[in-house]
Amino acid sequence: MNITDLRSDTVTKPTPEMLQAMFAAPVGDDVYGEDPTVNALEEKAAAMFGMEAGLFCPSGTMTNQIAIKVHTQPLTEVICDITAHIHQYEGGGIAFNSGASTALVHGNRGKMTPAQIEANIRPLDNVHFPETKLVALENTCNKGGGTFYTLNEIAAISEVCKRHNLALHLDGARVFNALVASGDAAKEYGLYFDSISICISKGLGAPVGSVLLGTKDFIKRARRVRKVFGGGMRQAGYLAAACIYALENNIKRLKEDHRKAKAMEETLLQTDYVESVLPVETNIVIFKLNDKYTDADFVAALAKEGIRATAFGPQMIRFVTHLDITDEMMQHTLSVLKSLSKQQVEV
Amino acid sequence: MNITDLRSDTVTKPTPEMLQAMFAAPVGDDVYGEDPTVNALEEKAAAMFGMEAGLFCPSGTMTNQIAIKVHTQPLTEVICDITAHIHQYEGGGIAFNSGASTALVHGNRGKMTPAQIEANIRPLDNVHFPETKLVALENTCNKGGGTFYTLNEIAAISEVCKRHNLALHLDGARVFNALVASGDAAKEYGLYFDSISICISKGLGAPVGSVLLGTKDFIKRARRVRKVFGGGMRQAGYLAAACIYALENNIKRLKEDHRKAKAMEETLLQTDYVESVLPVETNIVIFKLNDKYTDADFVAALAKEGIRATAFGPQMIRFVTHLDITDEMMQHTLSVLKSLSKQQVEV
Amino acid sequence: MNITDLRSDTVTKPTPEMLQAMFAAPVGDDVYGEDPTVNALEEKAAAMFGMEAGLFCPSGTMTNQIAIKVHTQPLTEVICDITAHIHQYEGGGIAFNSGASTALVHGNRGKMTPAQIEANIRPLDNVHFPETKLVALENTCNKGGGTFYTLNEIAAISEVCKRHNLALHLDGARVFNALVASGDAAKEYGLYFDSISICISKGLGAPVGSVLLGTKDFIKRARRVRKVFGGGMRQAGYLAAACIYALENNIKRLKEDHRKAKAMEETLLQTDYVESVLPVETNIVIFKLNDKYTDADFVAALAKEGIRATAFGPQMIRFVTHLDITDEMMQHTLSVLKSLSKQQVEV
Amino acid sequence: MNITDLRSDTVTKPTPEMLQAMFAAPVGDDVYGEDPTVNALEEKAAAMFGMEAGLFCPSGTMTNQIAIKVHTQPLTEVICDITAHIHQYEGGGIAFNSGASTALVHGNRGKMTPAQIEANIRPLDNVHFPETKLVALENTCNKGGGTFYTLNEIAAISEVCKRHNLALHLDGARVFNALVASGDAAKEYGLYFDSISICISKGLGAPVGSVLLGTKDFIKRARRVRKVFGGGMRQAGYLAAACIYALENNIKRLKEDHRKAKAMEETLLQTDYVESVLPVETNIVIFKLNDKYTDADFVAALAKEGIRATAFGPQMIRFVTHLDITDEMMQHTLSVLKSLSKQQVEV
Repeated sequence: MNITDLRSDTVTKPTPEMLQAMFAAPVGDDVYGEDPTVNALEEKAAAMFGMEAGLFCPSGTMTNQIAIKVHTQPLTEVICDITAHIHQYEGGGIAFNSGASTALVHGNRGKMTPAQIEANIRPLDNVHFPETKLVALENTCNKGGGTFYTLNEIAAISEVCKRHNLALHLDGARVFNALVASGDAAKEYGLYFDSISICISKGLGAPVGSVLLGTKDFIKRARRVRKVFGGGMRQAGYLAAACIYALENNIKRLKEDHRKAKAMEETLLQTDYVESVLPVETNIVIFKLNDKYTDADFVAALAKEGIRATAFGPQMIRFVTHLDITDEMMQHTLSVLKSLSKQQVEV
Repeated sequence: MNITDLRSDTVTKPTPEMLQAMFAAPVGDDVYGEDPTVNALEEKAAAMFGMEAGLFCPSGTMTNQIAIKVHTQPLTEVICDITAHIHQYEGGGIAFNSGASTALVHGNRGKMTPAQIEANIRPLDNVHFPETKLVALENTCNKGGGTFYTLNEIAAISEVCKRHNLALHLDGARVFNALVASGDAAKEYGLYFDSISICISKGLGAPVGSVLLGTKDFIKRARRVRKVFGGGMRQAGYLAAACIYALENNIKRLKEDHRKAKAMEETLLQTDYVESVLPVETNIVIFKLNDKYTDADFVAALAKEGIRATAFGPQMIRFVTHLDITDEMMQHTLSVLKSLSKQQVEV
Repeated sequence: MNITDLRSDTVTKPTPEMLQAMFAAPVGDDVYGEDPTVNALEEKAAAMFGMEAGLFCPSGTMTNQIAIKVHTQPLTEVICDITAHIHQYEGGGIAFNSGASTALVHGNRGKMTPAQIEANIRPLDNVHFPETKLVALENTCNKGGGTFYTLNEIAAISEVCKRHNLALHLDGARVFNALVASGDAAKEYGLYFDSISICISKGLGAPVGSVLLGTKDFIKRARRVRKVFGGGMRQAGYLAAACIYALENNIKRLKEDHRKAKAMEETLLQTDYVESVLPVETNIVIFKLNDKYTDADFVAALAKEGIRATAFGPQMIRFVTHLDITDEMMQHTLSVLKSLSKQQVEV
Repeated sequence: MNITDLRSDTVTKPTPEMLQAMFAAPVGDDVYGEDPTVNALEEKAAAMFGMEAGLFCPSGTMTNQIAIKVHTQPLTEVICDITAHIHQYEGGGIAFNSGASTALVHGNRGKMTPAQIEANIRPLDNVHFPETKLVALENTCNKGGGTFYTLNEIAAISEVCKRHNLALHLDGARVFNALVASGDAAKEYGLYFDSISICISKGLGAPVGSVLLGTKDFIKRARRVRKVFGGGMRQAGYLAAACIYALENNIKRLKEDHRKAKAMEETLLQTDYVESVLPVETNIVIFKLNDKYTDADFVAALAKEGIRATAFGPQMIRFVTHLDITDEMMQHTLSVLKSLSKQQVEV
């Protein structure tokens, strides 16, 4: 049976064309700064987002954790939404890697307002508190169900940060989904963010790789942190070539993934086992089961039909669409979702 | 003018009797373990709470931070209420000193339920999350307005901790207020907590000093952390003597402070400038002003009458009663609170 | 001009056969543990060294730093030679990532004796000192000029560690050079070390990749640390395939690199610009220039002839031989080294 | 038997005059900055050393560790002598509290030369190394046997630091001994050091207390670190009063301690059990035993005569003279030292 893997957009495998690009890549020792393909990727990504420089890393967790480390110091604090990947899924890295505290905002599906951010800035000159140094956004918001900030919303948050002398970081694990959905220009992000982490091994389909973007000075300091984490790789150009291919070929097609996610939402809303679905905005579908199925039973029922999904909290299920989900897989999935609705559940 | 200082119960000064006890204390070099008065205090406090051993420290922040450090490791997590002193007022120390993350519970006036704690325990064996290691209670809860856990509530939380193999720490900055208000026996605390920090420079009136309590092995490890923080003092017996005096003489009288706080609440409820008062349970009165006064104006108005209070967030005011608040000061305070009600505010 | 790159054995590029192996590798999402090629590499490397389990990482710095983190805790100490890579070249990672102190032994060309190690173990139960927890060896010793420990020497050090309840880690960045030179069996290393980091992107020629080896429980904890450093990669099988190819094909040929390094030593000893050469034992040649050339001038003179070398401290030069150094390059190098001897230096 | 305690100058107890000063002190809540005696001490000490501001702390370990934390960041490095207290006796605090690395200089009895310091400064812009940020001196040098830097030597080191943009910290645990022995003016220290830790509970005889000195901005940041370590005390004026008394009355008399230490050295040099004595410069006498006695036996033999000393490494003994060593104790000590020379040791 062909597996329809909806667990995450990280599971994609390179197409033959991407593989061809990888193995034709010129490489060198990137620890010496001599891998031409890595250098080309870093420049390309920086230019795309209107930033000065880039740094290739093995994962989006590393690009985020490096950015947090460079922007903060021990005894300082990061403001982010309570659902943020940097807080929820990076192993406690803000405290571990940076010794920094975290002020958690309860935003709307992962999105914070400028007022919420401002209310969480610590008073200056009070030794009882850490100093606020950094605000971090996630766009799209994974745990919020693929919601996105528009450029206008980002600009308003940037204004608060500038007024309070705070750095603004973007966890752009799925920023290309946000850009495709909003129609905003990547280049304008550079006006508002002090650092951006983009991940190319999610929806864009590269096997490995994220790029951290910032000023030249920021990237110079980031390079030190990458070294101490052990993120410096040697002939990394093979991986970087796949990322370049992905940036050049796989962005526009993300709207296909969004369309498929929307179709799943529509089908789910017609079933008898769903309590609610977070309105789909990009390629993530998060829904809550009523008591017809437990989350474990539902995941198991899908697995029997060759469909893999993620249990995402009590009674919560997450689907993520991506470039390895074919139209056939899509038809199969919708059909299974419908059939589970009609089924009697045995007691 | 005699100042009525309601900012905190930390502002108290030793009585002549306490000073006499300090002055007469035998001392030695406590870094060598040779200060007899420090040793006596550590033993006395441990026995009082049914614990094996104690460690004298210069502050309650230090006893808390040492306990957190000994119970946790980097990559682990502490569960506490969002209002907890260890999270709110210790400078970001959980991340800074211990590299540990914090799971914040939104309890009821600082008090968490066993179910809330259980819901915040991380799943095992998932590398995306830190490991839950420690639950920390605060009793009484300062930011909750002096609320307290009863022994029954503590026992129920302890049961959750034991089932999940988590340590349970008590920030007992005002534990004597909790004991006096609940009627619970200090000795029984030892059945439930793995470590207890008691502070003797708050309501009990000693000039300086907290004691960390735990097993002998725990205190041995705590001693290492105290050293590296620089908390080891030499002839500390002068301070310890005041603490012994306080434990022997100043606990029962805390009910006087509670009575005074209750009287303030009753008066406040009859004024025209108060929106709400957190029901007084011990020696802390927290109330919200309506728009007749701003918090800054209200504090200034009190100051004109020789009364000092704390602005405790937007439109929030905190009073703390303690052993330096005489009956005269009390009458004066109630009279000023009433007079501010009748006053016209100039625009 | 064809460049003869003697700066490091990290600069090698995959051969067509290795590239073919990479290109054909089955892959999956390694964060889910589903990359078959990564899994195969981890098992193969563990079996080779007589260890239970392995963890693939982007660099040897990461495998070392993870091992140190898992073996230590803040307030503990690592014993290593003062020349050790973990101390000298990993960005201060022992303090940064682990909060651990370092006791530095002045060994013989990077090699510590059991007695030196024992003399650096801290007394127990003295709060003034960190607790000794870990001994780390490097084999071969890079800064020692490619010296190696024999299995007998390792066994004697292991005995000290076991007696004092210390973990023993191997930084095996060039362990295959040590094995080829000593004739020792890799499998027996598992008897003595608690963890081993092997690097496959140095002499073995893979583009990227190191594997950390240890018990199953150790690797489980290591996986957490890899996550928080951001070292978890998705379809990493392409890189792992090159590592498998290297382990199967490129170990024995290291004796060629050793032979070439020895030949360089012999030539250098006959020149008029060398003060001394560290006796060559594997693939590293470190020598000291007399005052005929400064280190910078010497490196520049080689560069003019298409030879790249590393200035390795004041008047010190390092050459490293590896699988991209052809016989032609070798002849060219020896000839240039000789010609620099006859040359008059202009003043 | 009256005990002659030569273990350390930390064991002194307040004289009646000092005690009188302590208990007459006006006090307040120092966390609010309202303890007049603490404020007076901080100002007095700062003025004495030509610095802008001071911060009272419970120990010299805390003042040192705070200074290191404020001057450094994770990924940076501290240069100090290998014998330095901050490296040897503060529990591994540089790594633990600051995440900073340590470059260890092998100086002459604890004293580093400007050239040694310069040789340990890391090259800029190399990601393999931490960044050098701080040089720390200890004056007098405890483990060096009470040696001291003169102002001229300090000036020369300061020049290196300024040229390389490094901060210069003084661990002045026994700086008053250095000042008395050298005749240098305390005030001139302010020209050279960015921070100074002075300890008043050693030779000056106060029961508890050190003061950290620096610029106003430095002390403001230090106050944050003191808070997070838990070093903020409430009515600390009692301790501060003893420190003020000590600064006003107990400095000049240190020459008495030096004279006594010198007399011990002279006596030791005439015995048959001493291999060598580090030439005495201030109040510390460190000597090496030949094989007539083990260090443990020698300490035990002294103890029988009511004299306490410290075993200070294999066959090493340390005596420290201080203000509680009376002339009678001195005569007794010299007499015992002589008598141990004549004694036959039983085998």
